[in-house]
Amino acid sequence: MEHSKLFIKLIDSLKRMPGVGSRSAQRMAFFMLDKEPKVAKLISDNIQQCLEVLKNCQQCNILTEANICDICSSLKRDNKTVCIVESPSNVIAIENTGVYKGVYFVLKGVLNPMDGIGPDEINLPKLETLLKGKLFKEVILALSSTVEGEATSYYIANMANQYGLKSSKIAHGIPMGGELEYIDAQTISTALTHRLNLDK
Amino acid sequence: MEHSKLFIKLIDSLKRMPGVGSRSAQRMAFFMLDKEPKVAKLISDNIQQCLEVLKNCQQCNILTEANICDICSSLKRDNKTVCIVESPSNVIAIENTGVYKGVYFVLKGVLNPMDGIGPDEINLPKLETLLKGKLFKEVILALSSTVEGEATSYYIANMANQYGLKSSKIAHGIPMGGELEYIDAQTISTALTHRLNLDK
Repeated sequence: MEHSKLFIKLIDSLKRMPGVGSRSAQRMAFFMLDKEPKVAKLISDNIQQCLEVLKNCQQCNILTEANICDICSSLKRDNKTVCIVESPSNVIAIENTGVYKGVYFVLKGVLNPMDGIGPDEINLPKLETLLKGKLFKEVILALSSTVEGEATSYYIANMANQYGLKSSKIAHGIPMGGELEYIDAQTISTALTHRLNLDK
Repeated sequence: MEHSKLFIKLIDSLKRMPGVGSRSAQRMAFFMLDKEPKVAKLISDNIQQCLEVLKNCQQCNILTEANICDICSSLKRDNKTVCIVESPSNVIAIENTGVYKGVYFVLKGVLNPMDGIGPDEINLPKLETLLKGKLFKEVILALSSTVEGEATSYYIANMANQYGLKSSKIAHGIPMGGELEYIDAQTISTALTHRLNLDK
């Protein structure tokens, strides 16, 4: 006996999420449909609602319910300092340290020419417009310490220098190849404090 | 900065699935909303569609698109032999061995008086009606080898004996406390072959 086609479609779609394999997807599907249809309805509705309501902040690209997010519109933040990260989850990781008081700019990943991902694909033209407009005085780079992340950092640092802005990247302390969203707050906070000056 | 309330609602609902903790739920939510809104839409739609279309087979309780499932309505299956399992995922596990040719009856879990789960809660009255009606000649019990599972097996074996039916339970080979859906096909197939006779 095969699963019903609809059920297989559900399992296949669940498997597309990060960290979800065949077994977990099947387990989730059975849980939702057989044991807890209310939870299934809730998840489906919540996804739908988030898709309808959440959008990217017009300034920093964070997911938000308003046009401009809470951070960008806050009077308590230092809006002359911008921290560049590669995904919204990294914003949460940095915010959890409580150390950073500036604003953010979220790229759509990092440069990866081998996969055809250039500046246009990761929102760099928008960042360049912001840097050019002298909105910021300082750029802090908090990208992954992978080859692609480092390359992207240097690309942006050059851009910042070109417009006369200070630039730095968060300090060593983040393990090489590690992903920011899995690092503890203390390490991220140390890395922010000991950031490496990239001025020429 | 806090997550948007909608986003937190989504994370909370994802966390209710088995094997999904805070980190995985956050990762899934960001993946769906920030990276792959198409996948998010797909998952939400598939859940919705499954909830609308899938129902329990009127005879065996398996999830199916029809009133009677493929197994119960198949002419190739031995409909005089019924295998009792505690969840639809266990049907899939047994079907994957290719050894079993009878039909199934899916309970809603096992008896657990401490949690107030008695015969009525796990669909035993419906099973009793079927056994009473002499639809089957043989009952094979394939419940978990937990205390509750064993108790449920003996409860059903007594019921089967009462109506003059042969009853057996799948053989040792399934590790004690293990859950059927995680066992390999070979072990399940051996357990089916060496099932223990419970006739009095």
